Amino acid sequence: MSRILTGIQASGRPHLGNILGAIEPAVALSQKPENESFLFIADLHSLTTVKDPALLQSNTAAVASAWLACGFDAEKNFFYRQSRLAGFHTELLWYLSCLTPYPMLANAHSFKEKSDKLSDVNAGLFTYPVLQAADIILYQANFVPVGKDQKQHLEMSKDIAATFNRVFGEVFVLPEPLINESVMTIPGIDGQKMSKSYNNYIDIFLPEKELDKQIKRIVTDATPLEEPKNPDTCLVFKLYALLADESQISAMREKYMAGGYGYGHAKKEFLELILTKYKKQREVFNFYMENPDELEAKLRNGEEKAKEIASQTMNEVRKLLKFA
Amino acid sequence: MSRILTGIQASGRPHLGNILGAIEPAVALSQKPENESFLFIADLHSLTTVKDPALLQSNTAAVASAWLACGFDAEKNFFYRQSRLAGFHTELLWYLSCLTPYPMLANAHSFKEKSDKLSDVNAGLFTYPVLQAADIILYQANFVPVGKDQKQHLEMSKDIAATFNRVFGEVFVLPEPLINESVMTIPGIDGQKMSKSYNNYIDIFLPEKELDKQIKRIVTDATPLEEPKNPDTCLVFKLYALLADESQISAMREKYMAGGYGYGHAKKEFLELILTKYKKQREVFNFYMENPDELEAKLRNGEEKAKEIASQTMNEVRKLLKFA
Repeated sequence: MSRILTGIQASGRPHLGNILGAIEPAVALSQKPENESFLFIADLHSLTTVKDPALLQSNTAAVASAWLACGFDAEKNFFYRQSRLAGFHTELLWYLSCLTPYPMLANAHSFKEKSDKLSDVNAGLFTYPVLQAADIILYQANFVPVGKDQKQHLEMSKDIAATFNRVFGEVFVLPEPLINESVMTIPGIDGQKMSKSYNNYIDIFLPEKELDKQIKRIVTDATPLEEPKNPDTCLVFKLYALLADESQISAMREKYMAGGYGYGHAKKEFLELILTKYKKQREVFNFYMENPDELEAKLRNGEEKAKEIASQTMNEVRKLLKFA
Repeated sequence: MSRILTGIQASGRPHLGNILGAIEPAVALSQKPENESFLFIADLHSLTTVKDPALLQSNTAAVASAWLACGFDAEKNFFYRQSRLAGFHTELLWYLSCLTPYPMLANAHSFKEKSDKLSDVNAGLFTYPVLQAADIILYQANFVPVGKDQKQHLEMSKDIAATFNRVFGEVFVLPEPLINESVMTIPGIDGQKMSKSYNNYIDIFLPEKELDKQIKRIVTDATPLEEPKNPDTCLVFKLYALLADESQISAMREKYMAGGYGYGHAKKEFLELILTKYKKQREVFNFYMENPDELEAKLRNGEEKAKEIASQTMNEVRKLLKFA
């Protein structure tokens, strides 16, 4: 049994890029019988940048609903908001802070980047890799799926855990990164990487009309309708191919090359594909967004389960520190 | 009703300098009917420098026993170990960290000093003024007795509390410093300021023989026994005068000036004075040191009481953050 842990920023409704790049692979991992997945909404981390509790709350609801919609099984696995176990996470944060060399944080890439960009550089932003370490080792996670850019943070988590074990006694599993080398970059409707901050994303949970509008904004060239088109240079085709099966892809490829098939047609087929393929996900997402009590119950249940593991770890930690 | 809060480092058995300079004035404040004192052992802070849990535990016991010995009424007031309420203190620490500008901490005197001196500069040492702010405002303290050197930290606490109130809503009382301008500097047995780190202290809780040895080490000049002596330049007289009443002081002054009275005599009188004046304190101290269960019960009771206040504050905080 491997414990796999993923923290998700409470940054609002996940878009197609998030779903294909992060949520679906994580859900697939969580479905394997030999895995136990810990999936939490990192709302304590979000507080370093978001200071609007109502926004944070609605972002959290959207993220949680999207994960459930994409098939994350909160009964088999662990599903919780970090804020609801804040005492455990932050108590461990403090103990780890006392073992984390100041220069390790000052020299972290993430801090250097942020401290250049943000006018509001706060202490939370500085210590957040230590909170991240606490998030991981509190649940004795074996693996953390990370992009290459986050590898440094995971190495810090491992170092900090090893230091605790050495100084105070063996408590923590040392987490290993699970690096997906073949991460797809999902293009946005302008061809750049799909990203909330570029406002070039496709939100598959939107009502049909609004989704249609987003898809119509996908950038194409000016080849007239009747002429043959190159599918391999077309963004609509690229996005369609990410969701379609082999036969659907070759069918559309033929239509592109035959001519008499416009980008508008392709966009329409792309819309239909989303509506069919994500029919259930759209329903489940809307169900949770419209029934906050159901979502709350799901999360509370997950938080009870997570609390058992967190208490167990912290009891061991406190015993070693002679704080119990 | 004013709430007065004092955190004490778990640095071991308090010496005469600590007792006269800090404990007795704080106990006097706590005895006033209009005050409610919060006295806690800052063992989470101590972890920034002490990495030996057994040492931290025995230091904590010695500090707690000394305060009880010096008359701190744990029933009327609040008496607790910070570590036993760690979840509350550190959760608030995180929220405040997200509001504390990084440069405010980087430029704090205390950090600048420590970062020059210590090879082990850890993240805990960097963020500890934020934990200090949390320690204070968690209990809605009105006043914090501080030395002039700690004024900057208290101003930071007040700033951070005011920022929280402004950004998320009014929760916190803004703490004010209670600066004792007339702080006595208690000389050690070598004439420098009495301090654990100079190893020049007098430990009034020692068994008589060991106490006698410490007192015999008080530095004096070489004036022969039969000659008159100047009380105002003599360290033994200075220390005696700190504990004695007016008539005792003038009696000894006369003996000094009359001659035929040696420093050995004065030291013996000083020893007798300690043994008489601190008879009860020595008994109570030894009682708690020899009965750790009694001390534990006293502290646990205090921690239950403190927990009520801390939960109340944190419930309000979480409500404002929409984390509850």
